[in-house]
Parts: sequence; C-alpha cells; structure tokens
Amino acid sequence: MRAGLVLGAVWATKKSPALTGQSLLRVRCGETEYLAADLVGAGPGDRVILAFGAAARAGRPDVPVDAAIVAILDETEATHG
Amino acid sequence: MRAGLVLGAVWATKKSPALTGQSLLRVRCGETEYLAADLVGAGPGDRVILAFGAAARAGRPDVPVDAAIVAILDETEATHG
Amino acid sequence: MRAGLVLGAVWATKKSPALTGQSLLRVRCGETEYLAADLVGAGPGDRVILAFGAAARAGRPDVPVDAAIVAILDETEATHG
Amino acid sequence: MRAGLVLGAVWATKKSPALTGQSLLRVRCGETEYLAADLVGAGPGDRVILAFGAAARAGRPDVPVDAAIVAILDETEATHG
Amino acid sequence: MRAGLVLGAVWATKKSPALTGQSLLRVRCGETEYLAADLVGAGPGDRVILAFGAAARAGRPDVPVDAAIVAILDETEATHG
Repeated sequence: MRAGLVLGAVWATKKSPALTGQSLLRVRCGETEYLAADLVGAGPGDRVILAFGAAARAGRPDVPVDAAIVAILDETEATHG
Repeated sequence: MRAGLVLGAVWATKKSPALTGQSLLRVRCGETEYLAADLVGAGPGDRVILAFGAAARAGRPDVPVDAAIVAILDETEATHG
Repeated sequence: MRAGLVLGAVWATKKSPALTGQSLLRVRCGETEYLAADLVGAGPGDRVILAFGAAARAGRPDVPVDAAIVAILDETEATHG
Repeated sequence: MRAGLVLGAVWATKKSPALTGQSLLRVRCGETEYLAADLVGAGPGDRVILAFGAAARAGRPDVPVDAAIVAILDETEATHG
Repeated sequence: MRAGLVLGAVWATKKSPALTGQSLLRVRCGETEYLAADLVGAGPGDRVILAFGAAARAGRPDVPVDAAIVAILDETEATHG
C-alpha cells in the first residue's frame, strides 16, 4: 500500500455501469496522482492509505477499480534510521 | 486508476482471437503511453479513467487486456493542498 | 497494454517445464526491455502490443509468463492533442 | 519481492473493517516508501522481505492489503559481479 | 518477464511458514534489485528470466512470492533496430 493525500473528487457521467454509485477521489502518492475508489468516507486534505490491484476489489470482484482508499491515517511513528 | 488523455486509435490485423471486435485506444497518463480497451465509447481528446490489471477484465476473464477505459471524466474538483 | 518493438529472440535450456515450447522474444517498451511470450508469430522489427500480468496468461493459468505479445500493430491514428 | 528497511508503525482508526487487528508498518525500498501488513513481527530498523500483490494476501483473499512483510532478513551473500 | 543477473543468496530465519524450504536469490534487473524464488537451480553470475506477480506462483497459489526465476538464459539473438 501507499500513503497519499486526497486532492479532491472527480465525476464521470459516461462510465462502466459497475462504477455507478462509487465515489472516486484524486490522491497524490509521491510524484504520481491516482484515482481511487473511496471505501471509508475520506475527503480533501485527508492523509489516507491506498491499496492497489485486486486488494482494491476485496469482496467486490467485478467492480473495475484497481486502487481504493482503505483507511484514513491517524499518526505515523517517527522514522527510524 | 489513472486519468489519461485519448490520443487516437490503433489497429491490428494479426492478433489474439480474443481481441477480435475490441477497439483499442492510445492513452497518455503522465509520461507513459498505454494501449487500452475502450469500454465506454471514448474518442481522441477525451479525458478518461484508465483501470489496470484484472480490473480491466472485470467480467471478461479471458480477454488478454490489462488496461481499459472505464469512464470519461466530466469535472475534477479544484486541487486541495 | 504497451506498444513495443521486437528486438530478437532468447533461448533457455534450463527452465520451468511449463515454458517448454513457448517462444520468448525481447521487446522494448519505452526505456525498458521485457521478455514476452509470443502468441501471434511476431519477429524482429515488428511493432507489437504487449499485455502484462494475468492478461498474458489468459486461458493458460499455469504458464509462468507475465508478459505476452497479443497483436502485431498495423497502423496508429495520428496523435490528437 | 523487495528488500526494505522498516521505518516505523502507522495507525488508522477509520479503516476498512477487514484491516482490523492488522499491524501496518512503513517500509522503505530504494526510493519508495510503502505501507505493509506485518506477518512476522518485524520492528523499526529491521531489514525485511516485502511481497507485493496477491502474494501479500496468500491465504487471506479478502484482506485489502497489497504489500506484506513475509520475512526478516538474516544475512545477504556478498554481491557477485 | 525481465532478464536479470543473479547477485547472490539471502537467508531469513524469521519468515512466513509458507516460505520454508524456498531458496531466495538477489537478482538485478536494470536499476532495481529484486528477491526471487529460485525454481531452476540458478547461482551467482547466471543471467536468468524473472517472472513477476501470479506467474511467480504458477501452480503454488499460497506461497507468498511475487517474483521467481523461471529460466536460465542461454543466448540472446543480436538486437534488431
């Protein structure tokens, strides 16, 4: 997984039916911006955990998403080393 | 997923039979150009959502594609932060 | 998927039994060189479509390949934008 | 897999229910920092082996993780070549 | 797949039980060093073929590996173009 910052929402009228009702957020991880399904009610400015690949579809095999927000980060332990 | 810009179409006469009838579009995401199955009728100049890996085959396990256009983007909320 | 240029063949005597009979070609995509199973009879100099991950094993789940040539490109529409 | 250095822990109160009870650690591999499920009781400063994708969910298909610490490295043979 | 150079072995006493008995080698592909399950008896200095993702687990779904050495390269045809 990667830690990321939620930048805002995106909308799409013309889409795969399986995406209907799925909110999608823009999330920056390092230098790259991803679009992710929001599974926990995150919002702009939140630091979140992004899971990629089949992990983003855990329990929902036919939803065409390959990235999902699976948690909102509270704290991060000071870096060791 | 990634946001991308549709650049144009590609054609291939000699191909895996499972690709027959599948339209393929060139899509640029950041610095990289992908070839993606078009699932929503996108065209050159459209800003689209690309899903990668098994998400691109959702419901079609034996089609040899690893990237698909799953939506055409309407709007994007102003960037937070 | 990615577009790539076939550079030549590779051979391996000592290999996983499941690779027996599978021709493998060197293909350059952008800055990276991949080794791919050839499913359509491509040859050096051909511009091809590479599918990655499980898409490369579509219909052949136990063959240990993660990249396959699934088409030989004819034409590419002029770039839009 | 990749070798990585454990930097510390992260916590998330608001998360996918399937992550409950799963400790998550920050691990640096080369230039990139990942968040990984800890399967072997690693701690800050440990050099570990990270497995990605479905390998991180081996035996736990519905846990939304795409990276896991699967071993703590003892020694590494001197580099050949 | 990628071609890579075997650098040496790694050992790990504390590991996922499913890794028991699995020899792991350090393999450099371009600029990146991977740890891979050795399926063909490779050794330091060998040029090998690395398969990634589920291809590395072909026939062994619950082994937490995402990269495996599936062949030792004999020859490579001169580069075309």
